[in-house]
Amino acid sequence: MKIENVKLYNSKYAPNARRVRMFLAEKGLETPMIDVDLAKLEQKTPAFSSLNPFQGVPTLEFDDGSTLCESVAICRYFEELYPQPPLFGLGARERAEVEMWQRRAELYLFFPVAQAYRHTHPAAKVLETPQIGDWAEVNKGRALENLARFDRALEGRPFLAGERFSIADITGLCALDFLRPARIALPEGLEHVKRWKDALSARPSAAA
Amino acid sequence: MKIENVKLYNSKYAPNARRVRMFLAEKGLETPMIDVDLAKLEQKTPAFSSLNPFQGVPTLEFDDGSTLCESVAICRYFEELYPQPPLFGLGARERAEVEMWQRRAELYLFFPVAQAYRHTHPAAKVLETPQIGDWAEVNKGRALENLARFDRALEGRPFLAGERFSIADITGLCALDFLRPARIALPEGLEHVKRWKDALSARPSAAA
Repeated sequence: MKIENVKLYNSKYAPNARRVRMFLAEKGLETPMIDVDLAKLEQKTPAFSSLNPFQGVPTLEFDDGSTLCESVAICRYFEELYPQPPLFGLGARERAEVEMWQRRAELYLFFPVAQAYRHTHPAAKVLETPQIGDWAEVNKGRALENLARFDRALEGRPFLAGERFSIADITGLCALDFLRPARIALPEGLEHVKRWKDALSARPSAAA
Repeated sequence: MKIENVKLYNSKYAPNARRVRMFLAEKGLETPMIDVDLAKLEQKTPAFSSLNPFQGVPTLEFDDGSTLCESVAICRYFEELYPQPPLFGLGARERAEVEMWQRRAELYLFFPVAQAYRHTHPAAKVLETPQIGDWAEVNKGRALENLARFDRALEGRPFLAGERFSIADITGLCALDFLRPARIALPEGLEHVKRWKDALSARPSAAA
C-alpha cells in the first residue's frame, strides 16, 4: 500500500534508516523517499536542521510540514495506523518483551557495533570527530561478549522476543549486517545467532 | 496501589532505576523492591546474571521466576496494565511523538551525560574500564550542545512531547539530575530547560 501524505528522508547506507525501510516492507507499506547524502553532511545543512534539529535520518515529513524523527518512533507511528502484522507484540507482557528485546538489540549490539565503526572507519571520520581508537576497541569487545549472550537467548526460540517476528529482529539484523563495515568478524560457534541471521536475511524485507 | 506478584531489583543511585521508580510514582503504583549494590558489582554475580544476563538494574522478577528487564520495557508493561494516567501518549501521532522525545531525551541527553560520568568519576571506575578521558570530553560537549536544542524545543510547550507529561520528561529529569555527578554545569540562559526542570522537580514523583 502506498502512503502519499508523507516523505521519508533516507540514506541507503544508514542502518537506522534501514530499520524503517525493513519495517515498512514487513507491513507491505511504501512511502516516497528522499535521499540525504550523509558523506556530504547534507543532514547538517540549515534546511535539513529545520526538519530535524538533531540532524539525522530517518526523518518523516508530513504534508503539513510537521516532522517525526527517530527510527523506532516512525515505526511505532506506522504500527498504530497499520497494526497488521503486529511488529511490536500483542498484549501487555508480549509488548513489554518486544520492547525489552528491541532495546537489548539496540543498546548491546547495534550501538557497540556502530561505535566500533564510527571510531575506526576512514569513511566515518566526517561523522565522528575525534575518532578514539581505545573506545572502538572497548566496543568491539562488548559487541562480541553480547553476541554470545544473544546466542544463548536464541536457543530454542525462532526470534528474539519468542515465536513472533518483531521490530527487535529488525534491529538485530541491521546490527549484524553492520559488523562488516565495523570490521568485526562474527565468531564461529554462535549457531543460534547464525540460524537466526540466516532466517532474517532470507525474508524479502532484508533487501529493503 | 500495591502490586504484589513482582519484585523490582533496584539501586537508589542508578538513574535507569529511578526512571522506573518515577514512572510507578506517577501511576500511583508500588512494588516490593530489592536493593542491588552496584559498587560491589552484585549485578555481575551468577545469581543476578541468571535473572538478567545483561547484568543491570532495573530488573523486574515475577512470582513465576520469569523476568522483564530494561527500564522502558518495564514502564511499558505497567502502562499496558494501568493505562491511567497515560505516560506513553494517546493515539498514533501522540504515541509516536512521545516515543521520539523519550528517545531524544535518552540518546542525546541521558547517554552523553552518563558517558561523561562513567569516563571521569572515580566511583565509576569499577563500572567502566578503561575510563577514556577524551570520550568523556566529547560527550560533555554533546550534552551541552543538545541542551541548547532541548531549550529551543521547550519554548512554548510545558513538556517535551507537548501539553501532556510523559515518560520522555521522566528520562529528561533523570538526565538533568545526573549532570551533577557527571560534573557538568547547566549553562546559564537556558530558560526553557530551567523552567521545565523546576516544574518536573516539583512533582512528588521526583522524590521517588
